[in-house]
Amino acid sequence: MNNEFLFITKTTSLPFDYPLENAETVILGVPFDSTTSYKPGARFGPSAIRGAYPGIEEYLLDYDFNLRKVKIKDIGDVEVVHGNALETLKRTVQTLTTLRKINKRVFPVLLGGEHLISYAPVKAFKPKSFIVLDAHLDLRDTFLGEKWSHACVSRRIHELNVEVAEFGVRSGVKEEVDYARREGITYITPKNLTLEKVKKTLDELREPVYVSLDIDCLDPSIAPATGTPEPGGLSFQDVTSILEIIFREKEVIGFDIVEVSSQTIGDITSVIALKTLYHAIALKKFKEKSFT
Amino acid sequence: MNNEFLFITKTTSLPFDYPLENAETVILGVPFDSTTSYKPGARFGPSAIRGAYPGIEEYLLDYDFNLRKVKIKDIGDVEVVHGNALETLKRTVQTLTTLRKINKRVFPVLLGGEHLISYAPVKAFKPKSFIVLDAHLDLRDTFLGEKWSHACVSRRIHELNVEVAEFGVRSGVKEEVDYARREGITYITPKNLTLEKVKKTLDELREPVYVSLDIDCLDPSIAPATGTPEPGGLSFQDVTSILEIIFREKEVIGFDIVEVSSQTIGDITSVIALKTLYHAIALKKFKEKSFT
Amino acid sequence: MNNEFLFITKTTSLPFDYPLENAETVILGVPFDSTTSYKPGARFGPSAIRGAYPGIEEYLLDYDFNLRKVKIKDIGDVEVVHGNALETLKRTVQTLTTLRKINKRVFPVLLGGEHLISYAPVKAFKPKSFIVLDAHLDLRDTFLGEKWSHACVSRRIHELNVEVAEFGVRSGVKEEVDYARREGITYITPKNLTLEKVKKTLDELREPVYVSLDIDCLDPSIAPATGTPEPGGLSFQDVTSILEIIFREKEVIGFDIVEVSSQTIGDITSVIALKTLYHAIALKKFKEKSFT
Amino acid sequence: MNNEFLFITKTTSLPFDYPLENAETVILGVPFDSTTSYKPGARFGPSAIRGAYPGIEEYLLDYDFNLRKVKIKDIGDVEVVHGNALETLKRTVQTLTTLRKINKRVFPVLLGGEHLISYAPVKAFKPKSFIVLDAHLDLRDTFLGEKWSHACVSRRIHELNVEVAEFGVRSGVKEEVDYARREGITYITPKNLTLEKVKKTLDELREPVYVSLDIDCLDPSIAPATGTPEPGGLSFQDVTSILEIIFREKEVIGFDIVEVSSQTIGDITSVIALKTLYHAIALKKFKEKSFT
Repeated sequence: MNNEFLFITKTTSLPFDYPLENAETVILGVPFDSTTSYKPGARFGPSAIRGAYPGIEEYLLDYDFNLRKVKIKDIGDVEVVHGNALETLKRTVQTLTTLRKINKRVFPVLLGGEHLISYAPVKAFKPKSFIVLDAHLDLRDTFLGEKWSHACVSRRIHELNVEVAEFGVRSGVKEEVDYARREGITYITPKNLTLEKVKKTLDELREPVYVSLDIDCLDPSIAPATGTPEPGGLSFQDVTSILEIIFREKEVIGFDIVEVSSQTIGDITSVIALKTLYHAIALKKFKEKSFT
Repeated sequence: MNNEFLFITKTTSLPFDYPLENAETVILGVPFDSTTSYKPGARFGPSAIRGAYPGIEEYLLDYDFNLRKVKIKDIGDVEVVHGNALETLKRTVQTLTTLRKINKRVFPVLLGGEHLISYAPVKAFKPKSFIVLDAHLDLRDTFLGEKWSHACVSRRIHELNVEVAEFGVRSGVKEEVDYARREGITYITPKNLTLEKVKKTLDELREPVYVSLDIDCLDPSIAPATGTPEPGGLSFQDVTSILEIIFREKEVIGFDIVEVSSQTIGDITSVIALKTLYHAIALKKFKEKSFT
Repeated sequence: MNNEFLFITKTTSLPFDYPLENAETVILGVPFDSTTSYKPGARFGPSAIRGAYPGIEEYLLDYDFNLRKVKIKDIGDVEVVHGNALETLKRTVQTLTTLRKINKRVFPVLLGGEHLISYAPVKAFKPKSFIVLDAHLDLRDTFLGEKWSHACVSRRIHELNVEVAEFGVRSGVKEEVDYARREGITYITPKNLTLEKVKKTLDELREPVYVSLDIDCLDPSIAPATGTPEPGGLSFQDVTSILEIIFREKEVIGFDIVEVSSQTIGDITSVIALKTLYHAIALKKFKEKSFT
Repeated sequence: MNNEFLFITKTTSLPFDYPLENAETVILGVPFDSTTSYKPGARFGPSAIRGAYPGIEEYLLDYDFNLRKVKIKDIGDVEVVHGNALETLKRTVQTLTTLRKINKRVFPVLLGGEHLISYAPVKAFKPKSFIVLDAHLDLRDTFLGEKWSHACVSRRIHELNVEVAEFGVRSGVKEEVDYARREGITYITPKNLTLEKVKKTLDELREPVYVSLDIDCLDPSIAPATGTPEPGGLSFQDVTSILEIIFREKEVIGFDIVEVSSQTIGDITSVIALKTLYHAIALKKFKEKSFT
């Protein structure tokens, strides 16, 4: 591996090892969860998601598509600094920037870690819009007096002059609702969510977009191993349908799955996270092909 | 605290500590599960529900309402006597009666404990109707030869000349079905449940009502940590919609959540129980306001 | 017990002990899981399912029917040979054949164990069709170089000149899809499943049929304790509706529930497996009665 | 409560509620674990230890002593800032300083949280020596580039010109061993530990002392729920004997139990932590009495 990757370790890996220089998709874990306010463990997300590998077919029956048709490279995890969010973000940005230098067209997929880590790819790749599937607004200015918290990540990203749209939201505080209204940030609760509304929201977002999937957007019955489970969430079918629309309608330049906090190999949260990851990689590939 | 509370201990508590004399809502745990016939652990319900506190916002996004607007006092738990249901019920009745003396208008919310504990607030506050969300009929005359069993609680309450209506029921025995028919007790299975039918059922009930939410009314995928999980249950959306109708249509003089049996801090059953508790407290407050 | 049952042990049992000679339904566990490729534990299925007994009423509220009206015998488990699928299948076939000699009309219900064990009753009872509720196609020729694998069971059965139909499928590989198309095997994904389509599929199947329920046909939120959980599955209501149609429309000569891998007494997967078992036994009885 | 306690919340509490002004012992939780490098969850320590309350007698059979003879106040937890160690330490120091103003003679007992939190009471109360029971040396200068890490806490404390002695240590890196030798820090591994050596080590320490018990000093079989379990640890008998000597021989001005990371009510780690806490409180009381 290129020695510019100062902050990479590889303890677990999906068995996708196409040479980075020509890869279409690169997978990178960021096992950080220091600002998690309720149940920690998102640091185990990258390992847990990869650990589900033997349980899920690479062939996607719904799409009649084998993931092996995509040139994928899993490069391992960022060496995070527990307790130091800013240093961890800095290392992640630096790693992503190096990746881009090596391979300009590669599609980056991050495995969290807590949601704060989504700040790094937005900082590195400068999308015009940030589309997030999440149970929580994450629009606080500070949380417990801290600006660099998982509960503030969509706010920090919006402050970078990036448009934000949120699907599946069902928790927040008044301050966040006010901010969203004032700043024209659309959020759709599961109760009110239709694919038409999703499409309409997308129509108003500038491209390219970055897509972040907080696993807690799903109902806790479906994805229980997460830091702040919130009742009344989306179904797996909802999530895949939303992703299909996003990838079809928009130019997506990065994707992440965050807040998986399982410590049990092959639990249902890890399995659904990996399956969703496969969907996203396939959907990106379909879009590229349709351009050719 | 007033020394008439002979049977209160406080090992866990929600951080709501408004002076009891002027509180609008009082929370009381009853960690009793001796008659549980299958999987014990409901004694941990009060601790588990309170343990979910850091995971749920006090602000309810759906209602644009902050729970801090309600004057709430969590006074701790009744000192139960494991193995002695009658003494435990007696202590609970006595505690509730004392509470009422101190504050005539306070809205009591109980955290079970097994379902049998619902008998105490009905005995203490004498509602005209008992509305229960439950997977089980709980209408047996005796269970395993015992009249004071969780499986008989709705029967015991009905015998106090209280009307009974049950939503979400999907388990029982022939004897209970016969009793329900003979006595005019309406029960609606999840398969047959519509909000129209709920409303129609409510129209025929006398006021005031007491509302009891057995967490097993929810599907076991949503609330797995309970004593007798039963497939085919309600969704979170079902439950909140039913509660909204009840609190809007009826004068509710007490509420409980029972049969949460988690021993794990922050598991999804505890989280959904606490969220539902918040909904109920808010809904009660809305009703009061609409009277002003 | 008849000494021809060479390979039976009885460490757990449902409390149904009608004399075998006159029983209508016989229950037999096959605690084998050696070819399980992801998460083993299906060997605990028979114990786990029986362990849920105290949590589920024998009276089925939906059907107003008490299971005690069926003459049931639980004879225990086949003595499996871990690591030797062929010997285990042979012993199971031999046991089932002996059962049939003792009681020609008995309805056999098997508790897996991994899915491969379904081969034995098909071999023993020679149905014309094999109807399977499953998340996976199980139509591989070999899996990891092995023909006698859980991932090949529907293929092996089809090769016995038995028609195959699959409901709830959402995972497989291209080879299996091709085989299904070539051989005219109908499979319906959860997304596309309607009861009309199920009925239409059944109309084309020859009788008698054998029905196999892989617990992973259900969504992993509903039945998490299984070897290869796959997102996007059926609901409990879906499964009971499909079973109702099958038992009503077709002559069913055997039934199994496989791939339950719980090690926790009374977990929700065991509970739903037992409840589904009760449904199947009741549905078989109804069909018999409607013939009389 | 005094309004100088800016950073206290009380979601769980032991039922010891003697007025703070006259209390002999005050209990304070610090639910912080952001720098935990392996398995997070020490934030649940205070809740978990308190949750063990119903399982342990207040009467200590060994000492023929009832804990109720000690005037104890549990004031709840410091409001920590997840992800911000320095702010959390600052708040803890401020809270402890306020406590001392209110009650000059009170004996503070802290419930961690990760080991880093021990820095706060040392900073606040300025003992001459820091005695620690621990599996790890915690003498690194930095860990993952971070000075404020649980793995550096004994180093940071030693740098305050506080003598350090460590019992039960069996893990560290060369750098730490070198530092210990150079600085004259005594550490005794479980293999080499005798009560004579403990006593001899104590003889050389200046008073007053602060005592910190990292639960991982115990063998992982005895206290499994901890962030970095290390084989070959102390027995419960070892720990109580060491505590007895320390409290008898030295003037102890503060005590903590850290690194309990259970999320399960009443698990063995919580239970042993609470029992050890009771021992320490009793031992402090005995010493006071022998002075009177």
